Amino acid sequence: MKMPDPDPSILARREEIAGNLRKIVPGEGVILSSQELRVYESDGLTAYRQPPLMAVLPENTEQVSQVLRYCHEEGVKVVPRGSGTSLSGGALPVADAILLCMGKFNQVLEIDYDNRCTVVQPGVTNLGITKSVEGEGFYYAPDPSSQIACSIGGNVAENAGGVHCLKYGLTTNNLLGIEMVLIDGTILRFGGKHLDSAGYDLLGLMTGSEGLLGVVTEVTVRILPKPETARALLLGFPTSEEGGDCVAAIISDGIIPGGMEMMDKPAIQAAEAFVNAGYPLDVEALLIVELDGPQAEVDYLIDRVSDIAEKSGAVT
Amino acid sequence: MKMPDPDPSILARREEIAGNLRKIVPGEGVILSSQELRVYESDGLTAYRQPPLMAVLPENTEQVSQVLRYCHEEGVKVVPRGSGTSLSGGALPVADAILLCMGKFNQVLEIDYDNRCTVVQPGVTNLGITKSVEGEGFYYAPDPSSQIACSIGGNVAENAGGVHCLKYGLTTNNLLGIEMVLIDGTILRFGGKHLDSAGYDLLGLMTGSEGLLGVVTEVTVRILPKPETARALLLGFPTSEEGGDCVAAIISDGIIPGGMEMMDKPAIQAAEAFVNAGYPLDVEALLIVELDGPQAEVDYLIDRVSDIAEKSGAVT
Repeated sequence: MKMPDPDPSILARREEIAGNLRKIVPGEGVILSSQELRVYESDGLTAYRQPPLMAVLPENTEQVSQVLRYCHEEGVKVVPRGSGTSLSGGALPVADAILLCMGKFNQVLEIDYDNRCTVVQPGVTNLGITKSVEGEGFYYAPDPSSQIACSIGGNVAENAGGVHCLKYGLTTNNLLGIEMVLIDGTILRFGGKHLDSAGYDLLGLMTGSEGLLGVVTEVTVRILPKPETARALLLGFPTSEEGGDCVAAIISDGIIPGGMEMMDKPAIQAAEAFVNAGYPLDVEALLIVELDGPQAEVDYLIDRVSDIAEKSGAVT
Repeated sequence: MKMPDPDPSILARREEIAGNLRKIVPGEGVILSSQELRVYESDGLTAYRQPPLMAVLPENTEQVSQVLRYCHEEGVKVVPRGSGTSLSGGALPVADAILLCMGKFNQVLEIDYDNRCTVVQPGVTNLGITKSVEGEGFYYAPDPSSQIACSIGGNVAENAGGVHCLKYGLTTNNLLGIEMVLIDGTILRFGGKHLDSAGYDLLGLMTGSEGLLGVVTEVTVRILPKPETARALLLGFPTSEEGGDCVAAIISDGIIPGGMEMMDKPAIQAAEAFVNAGYPLDVEALLIVELDGPQAEVDYLIDRVSDIAEKSGAVT
């Protein structure tokens, strides 16, 4: 990928811009040294490396607003960044853009069990939300594989999913409200603690907009009670096609598993060599079907999925 | 409610505008006579009556596009109308606006069981979608109480729900794609046959926008397999508060019923006098909890909800 040529007039004004941004974000909030910027030269898509003009780490919404207003007025580009785990270049720096790092927004602001939601700052990790409520038997459903590190603000920007999104939906299906800052510094709030606010669905429009419409500074998400039980079926197939047919047969039977994943032979062998999970090595495709819910329902569904799998040609 | 004063220059041009629209929608597609317009003077919100400037009944997307382009260029307001069942004034006519009636868009265009969706014109009724697929054991989930008459295009405009939306979501959660026409006549398509298309969620933005962003000319919705079984519990409570507490207890226990409705004493008495359903008349609140899904799950959930109800003070 060819990055656009940086604007030399912005590069020439680097010290001046840094000085002005330091008035907004004091202390160590503006990072200029090339050594420290190495940390920020890439996100999860590590094939591309490009140090930003500088990194700016605001501590509150008012600072985000002032930084965006300043950059807007001065024609300086901005790339927002959560935890930088994106594999799609979601936080890829640009040489003539500041990188607006939201890592200091790391507080759980409110847990509201009555309304089954939690209000957090965007730098809280996806798993951090679950950790903060699991003592009471709740969790946050969307679970990207980077959930131990990825930030909820980044999840909103990318409309992140995960293996359980088949049943529980993507970020957009679990998001109730946000506070955000437009590129001109305007602070807005969409949604709240309940689903489907009146008016245009601007919350939905913002979700998955990849930071192009504004910077999220607060997030309210739905939390769900943990399923009573969860069991996984491992189903081996002589061909990938039969595994795929089994997926279609399960869904068309009206069953929505908590999660479903398929591995082909090279994936099975690589996974087995790495974790020794005991996967069968003599099948061409392995389908993992996770069923969750009340014990009675899961027992029943395990039987039904097993029947469907057998009819689809499952060999193990 | 005071309607805005009509623009006299538009009223004066009524014959000219009708003549031009008749070139776009030939035959009986432009209705001018005051007697015929009586049909269109109100929607479900019958407290307000106002004949429109004229009613226009296009037959295809190209005609919708040309009508909107003409009205946009000539400064004529447009109110789109589906079946006119809205109780929130969704299709309330305005004296100096044409009423764009979508009733002739009444065809089911495609039923795609493999992708579990159906493509219909916006004038198809909500129940008509279910009727077209129920032979194969499928249905369309959102069920406004007007579902026998209300159009799916109107459902998109109003983001319609119904008693089952607690579990199955509103229109926005069951809509996969649309074709629409902007006010300047531009024809656009959003989404398709799958969930969560790339890019901004313009499909979500359009849903519930009450016709203010454009006119829907084609709709693709998800269809679901009918639940194996559905059973309803009737729970009587000495007070409405205890009934409300029971709702909260069911939800916080992690159970999402197919539907839940509560009636207070006057509602119970009115319903009983009308349909003789056998509702108990000695309780202050009646909670109807519908549980649907596989037989084994429903049996289990009926037991659990019964337990919760007893603890919440249910007397019947």
